[in-house]
Amino acid sequence: MATTYPLVARQPRAPRASVSIGDSSIGPDTTTLIAGPCAVETPEQTLRAARMAQAAGATVLRGGAYKPRTSPYAFQGLGERGLAILTEVAAETGLPLVTEVVDARDAELVAAHADMLQIGARNMQNFGLLTAVGKIGKPVLLKRGMSATIEEWLLAAEYIAKQGTIDIVLCERGIRTYEPAYRNTLDIAAVPTVQRLSQLPVLVDPSHSGGRRDLVLPLTRAALAAGADGVLVDVHPDPEAALCDGPQALRPGDLEGLQNAMRDMAFVMNRRIPVPEPEQRFRTDIESATH
Amino acid sequence: MATTYPLVARQPRAPRASVSIGDSSIGPDTTTLIAGPCAVETPEQTLRAARMAQAAGATVLRGGAYKPRTSPYAFQGLGERGLAILTEVAAETGLPLVTEVVDARDAELVAAHADMLQIGARNMQNFGLLTAVGKIGKPVLLKRGMSATIEEWLLAAEYIAKQGTIDIVLCERGIRTYEPAYRNTLDIAAVPTVQRLSQLPVLVDPSHSGGRRDLVLPLTRAALAAGADGVLVDVHPDPEAALCDGPQALRPGDLEGLQNAMRDMAFVMNRRIPVPEPEQRFRTDIESATH
Amino acid sequence: MATTYPLVARQPRAPRASVSIGDSSIGPDTTTLIAGPCAVETPEQTLRAARMAQAAGATVLRGGAYKPRTSPYAFQGLGERGLAILTEVAAETGLPLVTEVVDARDAELVAAHADMLQIGARNMQNFGLLTAVGKIGKPVLLKRGMSATIEEWLLAAEYIAKQGTIDIVLCERGIRTYEPAYRNTLDIAAVPTVQRLSQLPVLVDPSHSGGRRDLVLPLTRAALAAGADGVLVDVHPDPEAALCDGPQALRPGDLEGLQNAMRDMAFVMNRRIPVPEPEQRFRTDIESATH
Amino acid sequence: MATTYPLVARQPRAPRASVSIGDSSIGPDTTTLIAGPCAVETPEQTLRAARMAQAAGATVLRGGAYKPRTSPYAFQGLGERGLAILTEVAAETGLPLVTEVVDARDAELVAAHADMLQIGARNMQNFGLLTAVGKIGKPVLLKRGMSATIEEWLLAAEYIAKQGTIDIVLCERGIRTYEPAYRNTLDIAAVPTVQRLSQLPVLVDPSHSGGRRDLVLPLTRAALAAGADGVLVDVHPDPEAALCDGPQALRPGDLEGLQNAMRDMAFVMNRRIPVPEPEQRFRTDIESATH
Repeated sequence: MATTYPLVARQPRAPRASVSIGDSSIGPDTTTLIAGPCAVETPEQTLRAARMAQAAGATVLRGGAYKPRTSPYAFQGLGERGLAILTEVAAETGLPLVTEVVDARDAELVAAHADMLQIGARNMQNFGLLTAVGKIGKPVLLKRGMSATIEEWLLAAEYIAKQGTIDIVLCERGIRTYEPAYRNTLDIAAVPTVQRLSQLPVLVDPSHSGGRRDLVLPLTRAALAAGADGVLVDVHPDPEAALCDGPQALRPGDLEGLQNAMRDMAFVMNRRIPVPEPEQRFRTDIESATH
Repeated sequence: MATTYPLVARQPRAPRASVSIGDSSIGPDTTTLIAGPCAVETPEQTLRAARMAQAAGATVLRGGAYKPRTSPYAFQGLGERGLAILTEVAAETGLPLVTEVVDARDAELVAAHADMLQIGARNMQNFGLLTAVGKIGKPVLLKRGMSATIEEWLLAAEYIAKQGTIDIVLCERGIRTYEPAYRNTLDIAAVPTVQRLSQLPVLVDPSHSGGRRDLVLPLTRAALAAGADGVLVDVHPDPEAALCDGPQALRPGDLEGLQNAMRDMAFVMNRRIPVPEPEQRFRTDIESATH
Repeated sequence: MATTYPLVARQPRAPRASVSIGDSSIGPDTTTLIAGPCAVETPEQTLRAARMAQAAGATVLRGGAYKPRTSPYAFQGLGERGLAILTEVAAETGLPLVTEVVDARDAELVAAHADMLQIGARNMQNFGLLTAVGKIGKPVLLKRGMSATIEEWLLAAEYIAKQGTIDIVLCERGIRTYEPAYRNTLDIAAVPTVQRLSQLPVLVDPSHSGGRRDLVLPLTRAALAAGADGVLVDVHPDPEAALCDGPQALRPGDLEGLQNAMRDMAFVMNRRIPVPEPEQRFRTDIESATH
Repeated sequence: MATTYPLVARQPRAPRASVSIGDSSIGPDTTTLIAGPCAVETPEQTLRAARMAQAAGATVLRGGAYKPRTSPYAFQGLGERGLAILTEVAAETGLPLVTEVVDARDAELVAAHADMLQIGARNMQNFGLLTAVGKIGKPVLLKRGMSATIEEWLLAAEYIAKQGTIDIVLCERGIRTYEPAYRNTLDIAAVPTVQRLSQLPVLVDPSHSGGRRDLVLPLTRAALAAGADGVLVDVHPDPEAALCDGPQALRPGDLEGLQNAMRDMAFVMNRRIPVPEPEQRFRTDIESATH
């Protein structure tokens, strides 16, 4: 397989890569939390969500100004005004920002505000967008398409890499199956599989995977246990009033659980949590921990 | 459901719409054949494929100048030069042209050459592209996404309609399932289902559905028997040398079978074949035909 | 592939087989209608449904005495009493009977009443049942499993054939996909694919495929147009009162449409309808039919 | 939903149940390892695999004497002789035994040898088998069907419970999707979802989920992190020579990794490992562990 995506493939026995965003770095021995609101609605909501993210230990802020929505009548995001809000909140909290680009024509504009550019699931095979984003040179977060195979996903990354941007972070966000109990089915085996095939870091989005708040913590733990380099989580100060995906957003009362899950799993997986505080490695030997 | 896509919905008991392209019209009582090469390779190959299409009874020429390909290293189409070839061949054969737009930035350019703009499966939820194409005002051929539900497909059409273009033709081209025997699984039940929910004409692409030449004729017949308003078929003068999807393209020797299938099914479904010759209705009563 | 299921495989260029049941024969140049109630409820309902089947042109009666149901609290069929009703109705109408066996322990009992034994989708890989049924020697109707590949389906048939019963008729009844608009997704391409790989006749069940009455006729036509050797249809004198799958059963008023669909498609596919009347071939040349 | 499967449903705020097998108990605060050979081949291979299981910390032995196989020409298991081998090995190692029943007619015989009866994925809707096994009264391990919804799975458990056996352990083993990179797609979200809906313990089979040895450890960790009550793992002394599913079986050199994964995850999830040694709870506070 390696020959079909030579730039993003992993060489046998070679270490996996890390991707830097702001002062933070993603993979291969860290456990990154990227969090924030699904959609930017107001400056206040965005700032409160960013503070929530920070309280939970997030080192990167996520938030959407351009929202790809199934219906043309649904809230489509605040667009450029949303970008301005995000930039301000990022500055105020000191967090680097990742936000979605949905149109190649907006790539430069979004890149002027963001530290990392997100390609959403619906655009994983929007090759013009992949190419435009790959030309910019900023790190890219590439979500897996709703029914993309792993090979198609890595080939989409190869489109970006071919333009000169190798700082790509993959994000598994659930695939479409017959099961109606959740919005998507988190393909947890994709994490170790991608890490074997590719040098790129891989995150998991436990919020969009299940589309249900009660699944976010178990799926976060499962993702990290499977070896993911971090997670991407929706938080909202008042999910009932959210304009987008409220049922999956964590509430203020859920943050301690998230932080504990991140910390516990970093510990057991022997990874660092990339906190702003002086770096600490939680554990070197679980044997000693149990005595 | 009607309220979620009011513009493309079908009113109870209302007739379905037809869409005109050149002198031809698609639906609701015709059986349209759109045919041509998957990709434009050379002027000669394109002309020969167009002549093949015409010989089989096609009233619209299809052909790709911009090819969305899974791998960045695969043939990506001839782009603007391909458009020029297509325009010339369309003029020479007198066939109206449908060709794919893969990037919103190309929409105007493609529209300057084409009579109908195709949105491919991978771009069904590329909302910027849907919007750009909807603003142009030319008829649109909207393929179903690889794993799109029928509701999502109709909502994608609604994006186009919301911009003022209601001349939209839907095209079922197979969905992604677990079955490895063919590239995609033709969802034949989508044809009557969409026709109940929406006023838009609906075609089937038997070539991309199966990805196998030997399935094209049976799937063509099945599509028309299910009520489809026509089919979209790949033809190539020399499929073994094709740069894209050769294994599914019909060869010159397959055209008579295609024409017979179209004619037989038009007859049994009591539909017109929109040939350039004076209109003929094949049959009004099968009873008389059998005596 | 042929070597993995040598008994049911089709030899290159060899004709496909036919299977006889009573005076009727299924495939390769007939268009068989098997119809009847999903479940036997009362003698009256069964007889009325059988008369409906006969009126629509059915040459084989179907009906379930043992019903595999998802819930243990749903109606499970009348069992042995249902078999007695079916036997009586079959005798009264002169139709041969196909009915489902759900348990290897019942195989002999069911075989004492039925002319053909049905293996349902849920039991396609119940290998003990396949073996038990294969030992009896009566013809078998083998439905495709809910998410079985074509290869698995043919291997299930091979289990039966290995016991000495080669009179097997396959039945495509829809596969499980992500699409919520219908109960199952009819995999129409399975029909020509199976006919290329195997010598066995293949039917389609348009009732269970969609689970909706309004899809039965379009899917029947599509099935026959794709080359199916016949269809298996649910009918019920009063579907609103049905104990099982009422929403998909045809009503008395739907029978003429079904008969027309069967006749039209037999005509266009150049197949016989195996009616009790003296054999007639509908057509040799569509050209002459239109004059 | 609770009303559709009242016996296996979980009451709001009620604790989840545990199921005892031999001296061991499964759920809700333990982390059980069930391990052994996929298929019994010889007494030596079975004993060696059982010793491997024991070395890795297994408290229950698994092994198949009756193997449901897709092809009638594949190794079908040793049957009754395999049961005798398993019984002997279970006695020698002191481990309780779980083994599969594939036919209702064998249920009593298998129950005479086994401490727990397994229903495999292909038989999840073999209702005669569910009923037969439910009448016996021994604990049952119920695997999820290849494409069963969670509701169908719980209804299958309800069939067993309706016969009087509530000691049922569910086992997620991967579902069928379009992704070709692994045999099945582990539906990790099923674990917390089932635990919310049902009182029954739930295990994960990381061996059959992926069908690849290199996925077993990551999937084991992920399963336990998602809250599973344990895992079911294939081990084989010489997988290259295995008659069934060798590529997924752990080798002797993999056992330490499995044991570490089990211990680490039990620690972080604050669960007991049900070892024969005096009970030990690994951790009450992760804070103290890090100092």
